[in-house]
Amino acid sequence: MSLTTLIADTRKAVDDDAANAQAVFSAQGTLVGITEVDVRTGTHTFTVDEPPALGGADVAANPVQYALASLGSCQAITYRFWAEQLGISFDSLSVRTEGDLDIRGFFGFDDTVRPGFSAIRVDVTVTGPESDERYAELAAAVDAHCPVLDLFTNPVPVTRTIHGKDAS
Amino acid sequence: MSLTTLIADTRKAVDDDAANAQAVFSAQGTLVGITEVDVRTGTHTFTVDEPPALGGADVAANPVQYALASLGSCQAITYRFWAEQLGISFDSLSVRTEGDLDIRGFFGFDDTVRPGFSAIRVDVTVTGPESDERYAELAAAVDAHCPVLDLFTNPVPVTRTIHGKDAS
Repeated sequence: MSLTTLIADTRKAVDDDAANAQAVFSAQGTLVGITEVDVRTGTHTFTVDEPPALGGADVAANPVQYALASLGSCQAITYRFWAEQLGISFDSLSVRTEGDLDIRGFFGFDDTVRPGFSAIRVDVTVTGPESDERYAELAAAVDAHCPVLDLFTNPVPVTRTIHGKDAS
Repeated sequence: MSLTTLIADTRKAVDDDAANAQAVFSAQGTLVGITEVDVRTGTHTFTVDEPPALGGADVAANPVQYALASLGSCQAITYRFWAEQLGISFDSLSVRTEGDLDIRGFFGFDDTVRPGFSAIRVDVTVTGPESDERYAELAAAVDAHCPVLDLFTNPVPVTRTIHGKDAS
């Protein structure tokens, strides 16, 4: 099925019943080493770890690297969808994401320092037959509709619960 | 090296020179299929994709699932570090993260709908010898110092550039 057909079919399904637009995603992470975490999400599994400087064995990328990968891949996929919607073609696309983090926040050495990223840079490289203006138009549409860019740039309400194994 | 030693050594390194606290993380994502993205970050590589309902072949988790995994694993690792700092022990720890997303935002069917998550739930399951009060104290310290929870709950400044392959 082409993406154009998929987009049209999705629009029809959502127009028919707005409940079809509501998605819930989830992931389950279990600590299996000092910093090693086994993750299950949908039908997929993978590992997260820290480098030795952060107490781990470096068997996999760490959480903030996964966050940057999430942003970069979401940008790339949103380019694919919005290129289709706007009738803009490209041959290749890659996205480099980079984030600055002051570790004093995480360690609690200085509670005036935020624990997360203080700044993020997204650099998109595109090749293809269209003009710079068309690619700039595409980039603006992508930035307005990219789920993970929205997550990075706007606050999301988070509720957190903690319980023992037998509690509900 | 124990985590207590690592934390003390890190504090000394940062006290000696605040520049030692500044970390830069990055990831590179390249579109290699309709929605399949190859990611490189540090020495690690992995794949991102979408399920068929979102145009992909489901060869790997999608960007928002990676974002949820990033949050859950960051929570788990921050529990490890802050349990050590607060002298609170636990036997097992797992974190379920769940997020609500209205796909009308991503597709641009309704521009009043945000493209990203509208709400996130984090559910932590801990077992061990400590009281509920001590685990609640630990959870509060974790939530104040978890880098990816900070990313989810607070805005991060993002700058985006786009260029062709030969431009700088």
